[in-house]
Amino acid sequence: MDLFIHLTYPEDINMTYHKAKKAVIIAEKILTPKILDIIESSGARGYTVVPAGGKGAHHQHYTSERASVVDDFSTVRIEVIVKNKSIAETIGNKVVAECFSQYSGIVYLEDVEILRPAKFNSD
Amino acid sequence: MDLFIHLTYPEDINMTYHKAKKAVIIAEKILTPKILDIIESSGARGYTVVPAGGKGAHHQHYTSERASVVDDFSTVRIEVIVKNKSIAETIGNKVVAECFSQYSGIVYLEDVEILRPAKFNSD
Amino acid sequence: MDLFIHLTYPEDINMTYHKAKKAVIIAEKILTPKILDIIESSGARGYTVVPAGGKGAHHQHYTSERASVVDDFSTVRIEVIVKNKSIAETIGNKVVAECFSQYSGIVYLEDVEILRPAKFNSD
Repeated sequence: MDLFIHLTYPEDINMTYHKAKKAVIIAEKILTPKILDIIESSGARGYTVVPAGGKGAHHQHYTSERASVVDDFSTVRIEVIVKNKSIAETIGNKVVAECFSQYSGIVYLEDVEILRPAKFNSD
Repeated sequence: MDLFIHLTYPEDINMTYHKAKKAVIIAEKILTPKILDIIESSGARGYTVVPAGGKGAHHQHYTSERASVVDDFSTVRIEVIVKNKSIAETIGNKVVAECFSQYSGIVYLEDVEILRPAKFNSD
Repeated sequence: MDLFIHLTYPEDINMTYHKAKKAVIIAEKILTPKILDIIESSGARGYTVVPAGGKGAHHQHYTSERASVVDDFSTVRIEVIVKNKSIAETIGNKVVAECFSQYSGIVYLEDVEILRPAKFNSD
């Protein structure tokens, strides 16, 4: 039976879910290079960028008019997963300190479960 | 040492993560203004809109054909973070009651951790 | 009072949040049909697809150049919610086994709370 399972999932040794932390950053598109520098220097091995629009605190719109909020994607939603909570917190802290004094934006963290943790950050 | 930390992070008094709740709404694009009204009237101070495609319950496609699912973004994914679970639940309840009797769509909630909670909703 | 609540929310019997599991798959766009087959055959009744860009493990970029990371969305972010953790795990396992030996990509799971669970997967 062990052999049979092994044949079904050649990668079965990796098929265990591990707790990890996701940081999500929503920011103006112009900040993307600076945010990616912060992410890459933290040891994270990947990130995902999605085009976004919306509205931030203080009631400034990220996009110029509400009517265009569904079509004008001048904002980015960047997510990055790392194994350690402390790395996720550091990414969040640095993005707020270095990017969000001049520009609006938010950072939040979430618990996630991942396969193949070696793909997410160097130790 | 306190001084040193203070110099490193001028905003250190804000660098504490607080539990908050995220509501995610996936709906047809035409519903966006109605959903944003519900979100804004709840006291939330911001939201993020992302173009999306996909398929909903009852096997109707959000987009007209599966072949075009990756290119035809006639759906929106709206996320909003608020400090209180009850506000997130109210947003979800209202969206379902007021929007999803006629149109397909889903709402879900997630736990998140945020910095600078004053930016997310008025008390 | 029960009657009053009933009048306020005609769908009040559905206005209870239930624990469920979300699987998120970030993959090259070309893999979308294969991933949607895995999702649909798992019993999930819907999914959401968002255009994305970014960078994966081993430092290959999903997109050809970092400069274009915010504009070249050759990656997809697919999310699917199911009632049972085991279904979410099976989706994740199958996507990794069948798609990610040749292509880069990640899968992660998250806890969510949903309304109207019958809309999410057949039992």
